[in-house]
Amino acid sequence: MTESFHSVPRLGVCYYPEHWPEENWANDAKQMFAMGIRTVRIGEFAWSRLEATPGVLTFDWLTRAIDSLHTAGLSIILGTPTATPPRWMLDKHPDMLAIDEHGHARGFGSRRHYCFSYQPYWAECERIVTAMAKAYGEHPGIVAWQTDNEYGCHDTIPSYSDAALKGFQQWCAKQYSSIDDLNTEWGNVFWSMEYNAFDQIGFPVAAVTETNPAHRLAFWRYSSDQVVAFNQVQTRILKKLSPGRDLVHNYMGNFTQFDHHAVAKDLTVASWDNYPLGFLTRDGYTEVEQATYLRTGHPDSSAFHHDLYRGCNHGRWWLMEQQPGPVNWAPYNPAPLNGMVRFWGWEAIAHGAEVVSYFRWRQAPYAQEQMHTGLCRPDGTLDSGGLEVSVLGEELLKLQAAKENDTVFQPAQASVALVLDYVGLEAQRIQQPDGKTFDPFRFAQQVYSACRQLGVDLDIIPTDADLSNYKVVLLTSNTISDASFCEKLKACSAHVVLMPRTGSKTSNNGIPSQLAPGVFQSLLPVKVIRSESLPDFVQLSTPMGWVAQHWRETIESSITPQTTFDDGVGFYYQQGRMHYVNACLNEPSLVDWLETFFKQRTIETIRLPSGVRIKKTQGATWVFNFGPDSIDIQTENIFIGSSRLPPGELAALRPGHFSVQSNDL
Amino acid sequence: MTESFHSVPRLGVCYYPEHWPEENWANDAKQMFAMGIRTVRIGEFAWSRLEATPGVLTFDWLTRAIDSLHTAGLSIILGTPTATPPRWMLDKHPDMLAIDEHGHARGFGSRRHYCFSYQPYWAECERIVTAMAKAYGEHPGIVAWQTDNEYGCHDTIPSYSDAALKGFQQWCAKQYSSIDDLNTEWGNVFWSMEYNAFDQIGFPVAAVTETNPAHRLAFWRYSSDQVVAFNQVQTRILKKLSPGRDLVHNYMGNFTQFDHHAVAKDLTVASWDNYPLGFLTRDGYTEVEQATYLRTGHPDSSAFHHDLYRGCNHGRWWLMEQQPGPVNWAPYNPAPLNGMVRFWGWEAIAHGAEVVSYFRWRQAPYAQEQMHTGLCRPDGTLDSGGLEVSVLGEELLKLQAAKENDTVFQPAQASVALVLDYVGLEAQRIQQPDGKTFDPFRFAQQVYSACRQLGVDLDIIPTDADLSNYKVVLLTSNTISDASFCEKLKACSAHVVLMPRTGSKTSNNGIPSQLAPGVFQSLLPVKVIRSESLPDFVQLSTPMGWVAQHWRETIESSITPQTTFDDGVGFYYQQGRMHYVNACLNEPSLVDWLETFFKQRTIETIRLPSGVRIKKTQGATWVFNFGPDSIDIQTENIFIGSSRLPPGELAALRPGHFSVQSNDL
Amino acid sequence: MTESFHSVPRLGVCYYPEHWPEENWANDAKQMFAMGIRTVRIGEFAWSRLEATPGVLTFDWLTRAIDSLHTAGLSIILGTPTATPPRWMLDKHPDMLAIDEHGHARGFGSRRHYCFSYQPYWAECERIVTAMAKAYGEHPGIVAWQTDNEYGCHDTIPSYSDAALKGFQQWCAKQYSSIDDLNTEWGNVFWSMEYNAFDQIGFPVAAVTETNPAHRLAFWRYSSDQVVAFNQVQTRILKKLSPGRDLVHNYMGNFTQFDHHAVAKDLTVASWDNYPLGFLTRDGYTEVEQATYLRTGHPDSSAFHHDLYRGCNHGRWWLMEQQPGPVNWAPYNPAPLNGMVRFWGWEAIAHGAEVVSYFRWRQAPYAQEQMHTGLCRPDGTLDSGGLEVSVLGEELLKLQAAKENDTVFQPAQASVALVLDYVGLEAQRIQQPDGKTFDPFRFAQQVYSACRQLGVDLDIIPTDADLSNYKVVLLTSNTISDASFCEKLKACSAHVVLMPRTGSKTSNNGIPSQLAPGVFQSLLPVKVIRSESLPDFVQLSTPMGWVAQHWRETIESSITPQTTFDDGVGFYYQQGRMHYVNACLNEPSLVDWLETFFKQRTIETIRLPSGVRIKKTQGATWVFNFGPDSIDIQTENIFIGSSRLPPGELAALRPGHFSVQSNDL
Repeated sequence: MTESFHSVPRLGVCYYPEHWPEENWANDAKQMFAMGIRTVRIGEFAWSRLEATPGVLTFDWLTRAIDSLHTAGLSIILGTPTATPPRWMLDKHPDMLAIDEHGHARGFGSRRHYCFSYQPYWAECERIVTAMAKAYGEHPGIVAWQTDNEYGCHDTIPSYSDAALKGFQQWCAKQYSSIDDLNTEWGNVFWSMEYNAFDQIGFPVAAVTETNPAHRLAFWRYSSDQVVAFNQVQTRILKKLSPGRDLVHNYMGNFTQFDHHAVAKDLTVASWDNYPLGFLTRDGYTEVEQATYLRTGHPDSSAFHHDLYRGCNHGRWWLMEQQPGPVNWAPYNPAPLNGMVRFWGWEAIAHGAEVVSYFRWRQAPYAQEQMHTGLCRPDGTLDSGGLEVSVLGEELLKLQAAKENDTVFQPAQASVALVLDYVGLEAQRIQQPDGKTFDPFRFAQQVYSACRQLGVDLDIIPTDADLSNYKVVLLTSNTISDASFCEKLKACSAHVVLMPRTGSKTSNNGIPSQLAPGVFQSLLPVKVIRSESLPDFVQLSTPMGWVAQHWRETIESSITPQTTFDDGVGFYYQQGRMHYVNACLNEPSLVDWLETFFKQRTIETIRLPSGVRIKKTQGATWVFNFGPDSIDIQTENIFIGSSRLPPGELAALRPGHFSVQSNDL
Repeated sequence: MTESFHSVPRLGVCYYPEHWPEENWANDAKQMFAMGIRTVRIGEFAWSRLEATPGVLTFDWLTRAIDSLHTAGLSIILGTPTATPPRWMLDKHPDMLAIDEHGHARGFGSRRHYCFSYQPYWAECERIVTAMAKAYGEHPGIVAWQTDNEYGCHDTIPSYSDAALKGFQQWCAKQYSSIDDLNTEWGNVFWSMEYNAFDQIGFPVAAVTETNPAHRLAFWRYSSDQVVAFNQVQTRILKKLSPGRDLVHNYMGNFTQFDHHAVAKDLTVASWDNYPLGFLTRDGYTEVEQATYLRTGHPDSSAFHHDLYRGCNHGRWWLMEQQPGPVNWAPYNPAPLNGMVRFWGWEAIAHGAEVVSYFRWRQAPYAQEQMHTGLCRPDGTLDSGGLEVSVLGEELLKLQAAKENDTVFQPAQASVALVLDYVGLEAQRIQQPDGKTFDPFRFAQQVYSACRQLGVDLDIIPTDADLSNYKVVLLTSNTISDASFCEKLKACSAHVVLMPRTGSKTSNNGIPSQLAPGVFQSLLPVKVIRSESLPDFVQLSTPMGWVAQHWRETIESSITPQTTFDDGVGFYYQQGRMHYVNACLNEPSLVDWLETFFKQRTIETIRLPSGVRIKKTQGATWVFNFGPDSIDIQTENIFIGSSRLPPGELAALRPGHFSVQSNDL
Repeated sequence: MTESFHSVPRLGVCYYPEHWPEENWANDAKQMFAMGIRTVRIGEFAWSRLEATPGVLTFDWLTRAIDSLHTAGLSIILGTPTATPPRWMLDKHPDMLAIDEHGHARGFGSRRHYCFSYQPYWAECERIVTAMAKAYGEHPGIVAWQTDNEYGCHDTIPSYSDAALKGFQQWCAKQYSSIDDLNTEWGNVFWSMEYNAFDQIGFPVAAVTETNPAHRLAFWRYSSDQVVAFNQVQTRILKKLSPGRDLVHNYMGNFTQFDHHAVAKDLTVASWDNYPLGFLTRDGYTEVEQATYLRTGHPDSSAFHHDLYRGCNHGRWWLMEQQPGPVNWAPYNPAPLNGMVRFWGWEAIAHGAEVVSYFRWRQAPYAQEQMHTGLCRPDGTLDSGGLEVSVLGEELLKLQAAKENDTVFQPAQASVALVLDYVGLEAQRIQQPDGKTFDPFRFAQQVYSACRQLGVDLDIIPTDADLSNYKVVLLTSNTISDASFCEKLKACSAHVVLMPRTGSKTSNNGIPSQLAPGVFQSLLPVKVIRSESLPDFVQLSTPMGWVAQHWRETIESSITPQTTFDDGVGFYYQQGRMHYVNACLNEPSLVDWLETFFKQRTIETIRLPSGVRIKKTQGATWVFNFGPDSIDIQTENIFIGSSRLPPGELAALRPGHFSVQSNDL
């Protein structure tokens, strides 16, 4: 099964049989199949229907739904319903709720109302997942299981409950040989914060002022580990009772509150939920960007996450939920430009998605998401998003039918890797000045965007990934001074670019004894002797025109810097294939700097018109126009789309020379 | 009494005998009368003096105060003191406090510290009101009773107390035939939110993320119903023990947290408290508007509320508190322009006020409102506001003395009605994108303002009002798909304008099966197949120059739209006297659109200079200049004011032709 | 000792022996001495090392540290460790934590986690301070004690604990003869807020809306009195057991939550902690000011506080913590301009500091302040700040070695005094409109700044200071109508300038019976009959070009005002040496107004280039260039620095004529 997914991307949809009369199911399934849809995700919010009364399981309706969908030719991704425990669960387990940092329970009435540390709820999940896996684990229609839904959505990773407190204290006791060891590693002497015993440790919140960064990072790690363990409760059962099926979880956009790479180890494929227009208002874009990309989404928002999650499970990734029209949850919710629903689907396919699944089949006429469109309107009529998916479905099936297109879906090897380290991001954030205008994850996305504006494809990879195929490895979040990763960098053949704050912290979030970049000083002789954070309105210039903002480091080195800032501070240190870039360049300067850098490393670049992005697979070059102007493509090999692309349109080209020009006169 | 009030507007004042030495009372009363003041409101915060010790009533001082005021020729509006229970009440009823959504008690130390659902407090109110009604119900000086004070002030309608929880659960049990019925109506299946019993229902707050819109609207309705019931406790007693007296409550500006029309049914007259300068900083005006109208207030702020509350009790309304100078509670508190205190009085009279009562007689030298001016300074000297009221009083008495002025105070029939539905407003707000820059109540005021900029008078009416006298009925808040109101619209002869979101929700705040505008589709064949909300910085244009912002709908219809937006979406659908305007035009575009619309319906319009408003009564046309420039009126029939009006001045004209020009060169 | 400090300013440093291996101590001390450092502050966060286990005191290490430092020639300022009680203290005293206004405990995990009203913690402090005083009170190396650390840091003055409630009720019972008296004085009749007994009084928070200003001011006074009493617990012991040593506390910048003058009475010297770059982002400076002074700090920020704290203990003051490089706690943390670390040291000396102590010796590699630089880097190497202090140390010792420089450090008598009243500031703030853009303490600083831009030196003094040496006394915060201070003003010979709100409140925060300025009406016949607050964007002009913002008063007076605002309101009343300025002039207008005013009083002024400040001692004129441009000094007597001063440089001139010009062409 896995293999076939690889070579044949499939369209999918999210469906809630429990929301609609049973007599609709067969017709709905038939219509889906006719549109080219081949997978359907169901079940992830249905606990109150599977077990309306505690202990009384009512699976008959789900069985009929699965059979109905399967009969129509659809493969089923079955969600475990653990993100929405029914109301009676609270009577049974009044302490199951997560507690917020002010001590308030995060109550019933929406979803995700459980604490990751409350083990009696783990037992309830074990029970329902076991029952479902026994019932459907070997059903021929079931191709995959989705565990829970969007871990962390609505800020639900950390909990400050009694269960979490006990759990955290025990976790600390395992991590440190003694309380004195912990006191030393955390530097608790600083403000007489030393503990006499592990059970004196509290949460790193609700203190008079900020708590110890070591304490904060430890609690973040604990909370992330709880997600991994909670997920394992389910994957353990599913692996045993549903052999051969994919295990997947649907991650979110712009979310780093737990270590996704750690969760990935228990899954076979990563997936995520993509709402490009909603993200535009939430993910730190400027007002100009919001206006420019109002109806298309930012050109790097989807792609960055596609590449990020592709890196989680060795290239295997699905798009589990794709925006089908206006959504309900952003501060404002415009309609996508005509064509974008199809466009986003192709974009995901170009980035290697095995499944592109739209959310949701039919708009619900009630409850929280009633103003979130679906492929069908609440009255059942196909909505404009549904019409676009029909077109996409037809195109895709046609393309797949021809043997010559086999390589169109085969991923091409990227020359450049961006390393993403979740712990490192958190370590930066814990002592991140001016977080309102600068965030390390946003900076990683700006580095990504700069590459993509130059037409350069990237992989986004964890530190334990294989580095042997890359010409360039970019580090923006490897904040932790990590000796084994450092050895990998030495051993590989790539040019390695260390961006600010690399190696600036120990694993206990302190300053390394040799100062930043810690062990990475063995790559090249630089020592950070001063860091400064700067307000948004300050720009530091160099004679080359590069402009740094937000963060700059002063370096002590035996190497001569390539240039200096106007006030005399050196900038950019290189030795062999090792590079230290000691300030945060702004986006235009990143583009300039990387263009020169890539050229020197014989990586092909192309200055794309504003809002245009390309992505290469083995058998195709894909061109996406997110910009406000139409563009012209000079080439003879277009097999999807045409040479003139209006805003919101895409083309696919057979490999070979091409150029792209804006039509904005 | 009612009759006489109609034809003879009276000036009034709010007075606190308990704040001043008894020896002042007679002189104060004499001075009030001499200034033309005829009513005086007292008593509404005096509980700690009426019952200093629990159970020991001390009414003698109040009796002397009432006698003293009455002797001087003043009619008394007696307030029940239930908005300020004394400190000892808390010892008696520790659970009487409202609870905020975070679970914190809203404590003693200011006012309105009670929960509308806590019935033992109802009993305390019943006790004190009964005692007062027995003591003063038939006193010849008492012409009216004010129940409580400013229901809802300081966000006091909702309470999350145990009493409210029980009350809400019982309310739900009455509204729905069974818990299954409620689950179905609310769509609780959506996220497994189904209840097994009514006593599992909680408040629609403090959940992990937003709660069900059905749940939220139900709780809003419950809370509103509690205000009605609380008020009835008092009106029941007062009707019985004080026959023939008016029953009134003083509502507030820009406040929609309960259904004022429902409360009105137990009162004989509506009143409200008007602070034009304070409202300018609070009610969503732009910085330019705030600067332009710094010392006059926005030209539609007072008028909108005058017309709104006039619609509550069949035309009978009072201005209970009128700003007399700088207040204390806004972020900044400028002094009114010289003359505004008189001006605001005339404005209210032009809009049909029976009583115009200033707040307060004398500035208190202590406590929370010590920086709120009165008609007199804290040292007892008449303040500038008091001097202006003296002028107004003299003018008013003189005018009333002449028989020829009888019709000056008689209301003229408006051609246009704006329907206001409190439930509909709340339904919109519950799923209101971008609430920071757009609010449905603000939009209603902008529609009102556009009419008024064209010199068109409006009534603001509830859905159960008589529609037979209107040429045009405007709907902006009839969000609920309401079959009986729809029938009324069919049956009347007016042109009906449905603005965006009309009929878009069921009474359970879901989407109607036929989609928006729900049952109103029987008025004209339009179906909303897409809604989108837009950020402040996006404007959608039409070839006619009309510009929509914030909200636009896409319509499926057999009717050809009158025009289309630049991106091809149709705009404005008409069939016979039914009109559907499927986007929120901004204020200038509303003026343009309505000008054409009114002309086609033979409703006279006049383009007034900026900041100028007119209002017609049977015997007069009133001209008010709120603007920064003086204006010239061309007419021969001015009987108040003169033909050149500087900023902050008004004129009254005998009916007939006139024109107004700005003097800004 | 006191005497010698006066004539010989010393450099100092803050040091934490407990953070570093004992083998470093002697070398560290040696290096300090070699750099010119003579004092070292230690111990203030060391409780968990002095008493790791409850009741077991471990002083041996501290003894060795003290001896080691003393042996190297350093004088020791020993801090009591009461700002950081160890974790076990909470097990012993679970109720010791301060409670915030929402009822949440302010927990362990940082510092200052105690409630000022919790007396069992006073006993713990008494115990540890007694033990330390017995151990080191007569140690020859100990020259001073610092009590606790930064009272009030992180908003820790008020606490809403049970202990505080009892304490506050008892405090009220002492202040007022009876509960009826309190009710009357507070005006509790206003909203039936009258109490029957003192134990019914609650905190002035968590009510439905704002609480009584009298209640709020009383609670502020109570909270301030608790700080005084808490501090006395320690000073009583130290005076007895450590005779002859200075008693000092390190106050903060821009902090007025308790009456510093009251605390001063139990100390011998005031000190404060100065972080000019951090303060720039926090203390209400505009974005332009933040950009201009990004790396120097605002030119009046340090100086204002130097002069403020110099006024607390009759001229004796120390700079206890001086910024040494980038800090960690501001929203952004730039590096100081090269030279500023030395510059700030000289600035403090020019303002009369006896000790200038840098914070801290070596940057900690762990815990909350790991990104706060020190004089040494975390790896022990001298950082750039340390190098600058070495230069300063050498210059200072050299200067002090020459007899001719004796008067260089002797303070000169200022002609102008600015009176600062902490209670008055609070009274203004309690009813301060538009606090976001206007604050009375900021206004005091703007008045100070205007003087300083004219080259005029000021003392900042309490109301009980001697006024006999001043030509001008400026009042901006004497909000309380204070008869005895009024008599002092009458009795002195200075010109007295009453700024807005002077005398506008009684000691119970009500309006004086004669209206504002209360008793000060006996100085000149003015009566405030109207106050208005205005938004940021409104400017009121006069024909002289003066512009008022934020606050204006209308005056009733027998005196003719000097001018009128454009709308006819009179401005600026003078009679003899008494002046009433009835509006808040903005900063440029303050400069203009004061220039004329000073000239008329024969106080020499000089229009300094932007960002330049001067300060005179008996033997020197100091010139400081904070501005963005270099300046030229015309004089022949420069003994520190040179005639051309680039940004961030200073010069010292022998007394005599000089002029300063900007070099910005």
